[in-house]
Amino acid sequence: MTTRQARQRESQREDTREEIKAFARQQMAAEGTAALSLRAIARDMEMTAPALYRYFPSRDELITALIVDAFNALADALEAADAAQPQQDYTGRLRAVLMAYRGWALEHPTDFQLIYGNPIPGYSAPRELTVPAVVRGFQAIIRPMGEADQAGLITIPPEAQHLPASLDQHFHGLIVSGNYPISSALFYLGVTMWTRIHGIIMLELYHHLGPTVGSVDDLFAHEVQHILRRVGMGL
Amino acid sequence: MTTRQARQRESQREDTREEIKAFARQQMAAEGTAALSLRAIARDMEMTAPALYRYFPSRDELITALIVDAFNALADALEAADAAQPQQDYTGRLRAVLMAYRGWALEHPTDFQLIYGNPIPGYSAPRELTVPAVVRGFQAIIRPMGEADQAGLITIPPEAQHLPASLDQHFHGLIVSGNYPISSALFYLGVTMWTRIHGIIMLELYHHLGPTVGSVDDLFAHEVQHILRRVGMGL
Repeated sequence: MTTRQARQRESQREDTREEIKAFARQQMAAEGTAALSLRAIARDMEMTAPALYRYFPSRDELITALIVDAFNALADALEAADAAQPQQDYTGRLRAVLMAYRGWALEHPTDFQLIYGNPIPGYSAPRELTVPAVVRGFQAIIRPMGEADQAGLITIPPEAQHLPASLDQHFHGLIVSGNYPISSALFYLGVTMWTRIHGIIMLELYHHLGPTVGSVDDLFAHEVQHILRRVGMGL
Repeated sequence: MTTRQARQRESQREDTREEIKAFARQQMAAEGTAALSLRAIARDMEMTAPALYRYFPSRDELITALIVDAFNALADALEAADAAQPQQDYTGRLRAVLMAYRGWALEHPTDFQLIYGNPIPGYSAPRELTVPAVVRGFQAIIRPMGEADQAGLITIPPEAQHLPASLDQHFHGLIVSGNYPISSALFYLGVTMWTRIHGIIMLELYHHLGPTVGSVDDLFAHEVQHILRRVGMGL
């Protein structure tokens, strides 16, 4: 086999893997993330099950590929939102990133459920494959805040100055091992930005919040504004 | 049939319905909420499917009964946590309620997923049956804050004083129709208490938060302390 043939074969293989993942996403959207079945995908694609297994040897490997794709797509969306703002407009950048997190979730509800919703019975994510993609997303949230801090534009609120020792130590460990260029106070602020917007989005996505607040758009924008003001980044 | 026989029959019917729900919860715990199947429950209980249908005519009616039970059990837990504190210790009561919300979720992960996790494909909750139980839970969160406010012990933070008009109007409507004895500023604070603790709990429950913060217990307690201080209820 020539190099060109080998390259062509690899490219075809990648196309087929992408096609299988597209069928899998359709199936999860229709029947829930837990219902994913290689047999059903093979049937939909008019392939035999053994032929499909050559691309994904098990349901779990397919799920992992879909999860890694989804975390990376979310991180791409956050990074793109950041990059679309002027580099020194740290407030605008962080607001855009937090808004993009919700925007991506609402536009990709099945992928969001896959990564942040109910666990799939019998499946456990191999952390060495998923964690790097998760970290990319978290870094996108803390990057504008970290750069604003380097420019002297962040005010650390009291609750971040006085962290429980266990949290302070854990954040320090991650900052060193993950090479995050921020303090543990900023790490804590980043974590709570994430948990706060995540709570709204999960409740919104599953239709619990709309009846309670009317405009989730307005609630979310108001909370983001408060999140920014909390660290001195508000207007 | 005598009255006594009728009562006995009704009581047996209720026992069987409870037994069916217990089997359903086991099945959801093992295979996910979306996998609930009346046929599988009938098989596990060694009943015929038609016999089971006399108790729950459809999968959706069984799901609704489980959801209403779960929302009520959560509200029971919140109300019990409130009632266990001295009536005038508003801060202790609100802290206990917020802690109990997390405690119940961690102790009943399947029920929590059922009410707040991924929607079950093809199922849509009949709001007239589920909303009263949902409202009980929200009322348990705002009750200690409302009573503290009547005692003049609440400080309204700036972001609650200046709400977007759409939120203010929507909250006013719910306050009037739902007979909540609070202002729209307090309603907003109650909503954001809920979304903030909910975000932590969803991330914790699905194992996203532990690796990032180490002790979720400490993060949660720290956030609750900050939530209380935000309204002047902290120590």
